Amino acid sequence: MSDAERTVVPRALARRSAVFGRSVWGAVDDVVQSFPDVIYFGNGAPAADLYPLERLQAGAQQAWAHAGDALDYGEVAGYLELRQLIADRMANQRAPGIDPDRIMVTSGSQQGIDFAAKLMLDPGDLIVVEGPTYIGAMQAFDAYEPEYLTVPVDDQGLDVAELARRLDRADRAPKFVYTIPTFQNPTGFTMTVARRQALIALARERAMLVLEDDPYGEIYFDAPPEPPLVASAPDHVIYLGTFSKTIAPGIRVGWLVAPADLIGMLVMAKEAADIHGDRIIMRTIFNAASGFLDEHVSEAREVYRSRREAMLSSLDEQMPPGVTWSHPGGGFFVWVTLPPGFDSEVFLPFAAERGVAFLPGAYFYPKGHEVRSSLRLSYSAMTPAAIEQGVRRLGRAVIEFLAQGPHIAERAAAD
Amino acid sequence: MSDAERTVVPRALARRSAVFGRSVWGAVDDVVQSFPDVIYFGNGAPAADLYPLERLQAGAQQAWAHAGDALDYGEVAGYLELRQLIADRMANQRAPGIDPDRIMVTSGSQQGIDFAAKLMLDPGDLIVVEGPTYIGAMQAFDAYEPEYLTVPVDDQGLDVAELARRLDRADRAPKFVYTIPTFQNPTGFTMTVARRQALIALARERAMLVLEDDPYGEIYFDAPPEPPLVASAPDHVIYLGTFSKTIAPGIRVGWLVAPADLIGMLVMAKEAADIHGDRIIMRTIFNAASGFLDEHVSEAREVYRSRREAMLSSLDEQMPPGVTWSHPGGGFFVWVTLPPGFDSEVFLPFAAERGVAFLPGAYFYPKGHEVRSSLRLSYSAMTPAAIEQGVRRLGRAVIEFLAQGPHIAERAAAD
Repeated sequence: MSDAERTVVPRALARRSAVFGRSVWGAVDDVVQSFPDVIYFGNGAPAADLYPLERLQAGAQQAWAHAGDALDYGEVAGYLELRQLIADRMANQRAPGIDPDRIMVTSGSQQGIDFAAKLMLDPGDLIVVEGPTYIGAMQAFDAYEPEYLTVPVDDQGLDVAELARRLDRADRAPKFVYTIPTFQNPTGFTMTVARRQALIALARERAMLVLEDDPYGEIYFDAPPEPPLVASAPDHVIYLGTFSKTIAPGIRVGWLVAPADLIGMLVMAKEAADIHGDRIIMRTIFNAASGFLDEHVSEAREVYRSRREAMLSSLDEQMPPGVTWSHPGGGFFVWVTLPPGFDSEVFLPFAAERGVAFLPGAYFYPKGHEVRSSLRLSYSAMTPAAIEQGVRRLGRAVIEFLAQGPHIAERAAAD
Repeated sequence: MSDAERTVVPRALARRSAVFGRSVWGAVDDVVQSFPDVIYFGNGAPAADLYPLERLQAGAQQAWAHAGDALDYGEVAGYLELRQLIADRMANQRAPGIDPDRIMVTSGSQQGIDFAAKLMLDPGDLIVVEGPTYIGAMQAFDAYEPEYLTVPVDDQGLDVAELARRLDRADRAPKFVYTIPTFQNPTGFTMTVARRQALIALARERAMLVLEDDPYGEIYFDAPPEPPLVASAPDHVIYLGTFSKTIAPGIRVGWLVAPADLIGMLVMAKEAADIHGDRIIMRTIFNAASGFLDEHVSEAREVYRSRREAMLSSLDEQMPPGVTWSHPGGGFFVWVTLPPGFDSEVFLPFAAERGVAFLPGAYFYPKGHEVRSSLRLSYSAMTPAAIEQGVRRLGRAVIEFLAQGPHIAERAAAD
C-alpha cells in the first residue's frame, strides 16, 4: 500500500465508524477457542434440536412451487399474509386489534431496532436503556451516536420510579426508552404489571416513545406473561418481534409494529436500506408457521423449562454464599451476580482455564456505565447434563476466584 | 388520538426522518394506475420470463436438504462458498485476485450502498454523484444527510474533467464519488477507458474513495465492457454487485468488495444492522449459480439485446426532430432528452392519458439539482411488440406535447 492509498481511509470515515470495531463475540471466541473442552454458556441461540426442519422444508417447497411473482421486486412492508399471521398471533398474546398495515417484516428484530434508531436519533440525542441490556441493541444504537441514560433493572423489571427521578435530573428529554420487559436479555427478569402501567403513564406524560423488544415473550415456563406494552399504548410503542427464537435464527425474519404515524416512515427507511426482504423466505415462514407454530412453541417451552430447572438446581447446589442469581419465568438466560468488587471480565479467562465460559456482565452496559460483578449464563442451547457439568465447573471456579479477593473495584454506573 | 399522543411523534423524530417521505414509486404508481391500459416503461426490473425458476427450486431443495447448521446464527460476511464463487466470477470479468475475505454478501446491492454511506458519512459531508444517477442510491445516501456535488454524465460516462474543475472550486473534499460506470442507470452510458483511468488517477490524487455500483456490467450486447474500476484500484474502490439482474430481484442477494482496511468495519455495520443475511438463501443462490450462471447470463444478453433493438429502432421511427436518446451497449435503459424547456414531469400525465408512461428525468437528480427535460425508458421487462406499441404512443404524445411549446424553463443544476 502506498502512502497515498493509506491516507484515504481515515479521512473518509464517519465519526460513527469508531463503533464498527471488533465485535465482543470475537473477544469471547478467542477465549473459548483457546480452551477447546470448555462448556460455553455464552451462546444465546435457541436449541438447535428444536428447529422445525421438516416443516420448514415443506414450507419452502410450497413457497417455491407457487413462487409466482415472488421473484420480482415487491412489497416493502413484507408479505401481507405473513403480516396477518403475525397480527393474529399477537392477538393470542393479548395484543389484539393490530392492523397488518402497522406491521413491517424485518430481517430479524435487529433490523427493526436499527430502523427505529435511524428514524429517531440525531447525534447526541438521549435514550434510555435498561442496565444491563441487549448487546445488539447498543450496537445498532451506537451507529446513530446517542447518549445513554442507563436505568437499573431488577426482579420486577425496569425501575420506573428511578427512571422518573433520573428524567427529572436530566438536561433534556430522551427520544425513547428501550426495554425488553419480558424475560429480559440478559437478566431473565420480567416487568410487573404495576411497572408496565407506570412506564406507560410516564411515557404518555413525558411524550416519550417506548421501543419494546420482545423476542422471548412466547417462551414462558409458568403462566403466560403480561400483555406486551404495545397492547395498552399502541401510539407510544414501537414493538419488535421475531421468529428467531420460535423457529430459527439463521432465517432472518422478524417484524415491528409501529404507531400509525410512524409506520410509513419506517417502511421508507427499509426501502432506502435494502428495498425489501427476501420474498420466498417470508412465504416459507408463513407456510411453516400456519397451523403449526402454537403447538411447536408449546413443545419448545417444555424443553427450555427443563433446561432452566437444570440451571437453577445446579446453581443452588454449586454456588457458594454471596453469589446470587435471577429466577427467570421464561426466556433463555440466568443472570449471576458475584459479590461486590469481583469483576466477571477478569473471571472469564480464569473460568475458561477451568473448563467453563460465559458472557461478562460488563458487555451488557453502554460504555462507561458498566457494572462488572455479574455474568450471563444461557441455558437455551444446552442439554441438562451439560448444564449440570458446566455449573459444577463454574461453582468450583467461583469459589477459587472469590478466595483470591476482589480484583477490581466495581465501577458505579456513570450516570 | 389524544393531543398528548399526537405530540409524541414530531419531537421524537431525527432530522433525517424528513427524507422518509413518500417514495417516488408511489407518485408514479398513482399516475399509471389512473390509466389501466398504459404501456409502462418505468419498471427497471429484469425480464420475469428469464428468472431461472427450476434452477432456483433445485438449488433451494439442495440447500434445505443439507441445511446443517444453516438454521443457526452464522457468519456475518456471508456464506464462504458463495463469496468464493463471486470472486471467481469477478475474475472472469477481468477483476482477478479478489480475496473472498474482502467480499461481504448483502441484502441486494442496495444494502451495500447503505452500509458504505453509513461507514463514511457525517451530516453535511460532501459526496459526488453522477447527474443523473440511481434513485435508490440517493435514498440510501439521504439518510446520512450529505451535500451533493452533481457532475454531468455523457455518452463517455462521468465527465471526469468537469469533476476535477468542480473539486477545485469546492470548499472541501468529498468523501467519495458514487458512479455506475457501466451501462449506467438511468442513461445507459458507459465510461470510456480514458475516463476510468482519469477517475482513478483523480481519486488517488485527492485521496477520495470511489463507490462503484455495477448491477448491469454482465448484461452487455456487443463487446464485454471494460474491467470494473475495482480491478485497477482495489484500495480506493468499494465495489457493489448483485444477483438481482442476473438471477432475480425478489431474492435479495448482492455483495460488496471493499479495501482490506474497510471490510472489517462494513462487516460490523452489517452485524449492527441485521446480524447477518438469510443463510439458506445464500446457499440457494450458490447452488443455483454454480456451473449455470454464465450460460444463463449469455442467454439473457440475447433477450435484452433484442429488446434494446426494438426500443432503438422504434425511437428512430417515431421520434420527431429535436428529441435525442442514448444508445446503450448493455443494461436496461434508454435516456431520452426532449428539447430544452420541456419538462418530462409535466409530460408524464399528458403521456399517460395517451397510453404510455416512463420515469421523469428529474427523479434521477439530487433535490435542487434537477435537469428536467429527460426521461428514462426501460426495455428490460417488456416484449419487443409492447416496446414498439409503447414507443409509437410515446412518439405521438411527444409530437403533441412539443406542439404546445415549452412548459417550464429548464432549471440549471443548482451546483
